[in-house]
Amino acid sequence: MTTYPNMHDVDTVACVGIGTIGGGWAAYFLSRGFRVQAWDPAPDAAAKLGRLIAAAWPALTELGLAPNADKDNWSVHAELADAVAGVGFIQESAPEVLDLKLDLLARIDAAAAPGVVVGSSTSGYGMSELNTRAASPARLVVGHPFNPPYLIPLVEVAGGEGTDPAAVAWASQWYDFIGKSVITMDREVPGFIANRLQEALWREALHMVDNGEATVEQIDLAITDGPGLRWPLQGPMLTFHLAGGQGGMAHMLDHFGPSLKSPWTRLEAPELTEKLRQDVIDGCDEEAAGRSIDELISARDAGIIAIRRALAQLQGGN
Amino acid sequence: MTTYPNMHDVDTVACVGIGTIGGGWAAYFLSRGFRVQAWDPAPDAAAKLGRLIAAAWPALTELGLAPNADKDNWSVHAELADAVAGVGFIQESAPEVLDLKLDLLARIDAAAAPGVVVGSSTSGYGMSELNTRAASPARLVVGHPFNPPYLIPLVEVAGGEGTDPAAVAWASQWYDFIGKSVITMDREVPGFIANRLQEALWREALHMVDNGEATVEQIDLAITDGPGLRWPLQGPMLTFHLAGGQGGMAHMLDHFGPSLKSPWTRLEAPELTEKLRQDVIDGCDEEAAGRSIDELISARDAGIIAIRRALAQLQGGN
Repeated sequence: MTTYPNMHDVDTVACVGIGTIGGGWAAYFLSRGFRVQAWDPAPDAAAKLGRLIAAAWPALTELGLAPNADKDNWSVHAELADAVAGVGFIQESAPEVLDLKLDLLARIDAAAAPGVVVGSSTSGYGMSELNTRAASPARLVVGHPFNPPYLIPLVEVAGGEGTDPAAVAWASQWYDFIGKSVITMDREVPGFIANRLQEALWREALHMVDNGEATVEQIDLAITDGPGLRWPLQGPMLTFHLAGGQGGMAHMLDHFGPSLKSPWTRLEAPELTEKLRQDVIDGCDEEAAGRSIDELISARDAGIIAIRRALAQLQGGN
Repeated sequence: MTTYPNMHDVDTVACVGIGTIGGGWAAYFLSRGFRVQAWDPAPDAAAKLGRLIAAAWPALTELGLAPNADKDNWSVHAELADAVAGVGFIQESAPEVLDLKLDLLARIDAAAAPGVVVGSSTSGYGMSELNTRAASPARLVVGHPFNPPYLIPLVEVAGGEGTDPAAVAWASQWYDFIGKSVITMDREVPGFIANRLQEALWREALHMVDNGEATVEQIDLAITDGPGLRWPLQGPMLTFHLAGGQGGMAHMLDHFGPSLKSPWTRLEAPELTEKLRQDVIDGCDEEAAGRSIDELISARDAGIIAIRRALAQLQGGN
């Protein structure tokens, strides 16, 4: 049985691939007080990473640095083996090219000490597709961030065939430990969760442009000045929980359920079975965690005001 | 040719239907300094409206009241004709029941002075479906708000068959005049724009719950801590404009275009024709209005930080 590192002892991590995503990870790790060892085949990788860290550092400072954070505590190595030597975790963020990732993950695995978990930033591939060339696929997991990784908390974690469930658990705890918001998926779903939701919205938007139903600018305004103002506070589920008034999601589904048959998007809805209805209602109740509809409304309104005021201040408004 | 009111002379508006949406409109109109005359068949309508205004007023105060705003400057009338007498604009927010709305809009139209525009809060019907019983459908338009109407700026405006284009233009200017963010649609599209986008996301989410691919809580976390943090700042189009690096949307479409064929959502994408590609690129360029990718990234990052800090303060965090 593999022993994974005690994460409290980890002081150095490796970033393999330091473009926009990998470099963003590097900046984030530095802000949490880790030393970063990086590898990237680009000849100007070190210069680029330096610029990216310098650009991200004011934001990271504003959000709060770890006491021992040092923005210069990084090195770029010519050899992959040197970059992963002695580290407690490895984040791979190579371009989304299957053959390249297959090869790179196998090389990382060959060079890294046993028990060191490797998180892949892949946004498109499941780990079962990525780990087939690695000698020890057990420690390879998906750790999918959102751009920019130093500002957006979400990381989606999933294993694949051959992944050790303990490695998935370790990765989830690790990302949580370093301050990310973690979703641990118990299966491989193309696009994971956030990208599937985002992709549905994006595809409907493309259809609307394609059919002359809306302009690019109208689509963006519809989100930024409409439901987008609620989404950093309450996701689509809790949003509709509140759309049901005091009856919450149950009332919402009973009242608006028939609208799932309406041609309000090109995506056909699932049949609203009794089981689906109950699953959604129960999920909202769990998420509400005892907060009443009125409490959730107050929280939403306070959040929208805070967001609108913060953005108005940025724009030099009131 | 119909003469519409000079909106600078409007001092009183009518709210017909004062549930959550109509009452929210009433609170908003009061905050902008208007007198509100309301009508609603519920026996306790006045008491409910008083509570709703009282609950909304602190938020409205924080966002900034018009100098002459008075939270008590409203009345609820037993007769519809009395509610719409002498007003410069009428907002209809009755329940989403077709026969009821058909009848009510005809009655409002019969009672209101000529040239007074009626905006319907309908979220589901096009105006062509709603105006068929009215004697003068020309002044009936959709003015679709988002909940809560006193906090979310978006209003989608659209006419239907028989609507005077000048009434649509007047309504758009009116909502803009009172401080809303207005999208004027040049055709009737079921779900308008924001609800279509929101509905696509919601239906994909329901499919995921239905198939056990994600829990309700994971779906909400995926949005609130992921792409949702970007959406009050930059909509889905501008978000992907930045995903293309310095090459912007053109690079994004050329690089990720093939992923439109990926099974990342149940919604099939349109064919990425040369015309669609160019329309999306041109739309992003127009929306960017000369701002460089770097400037847009800085604005996004500053916005995300502002939002995260504002929400952390609300939660008693850093």
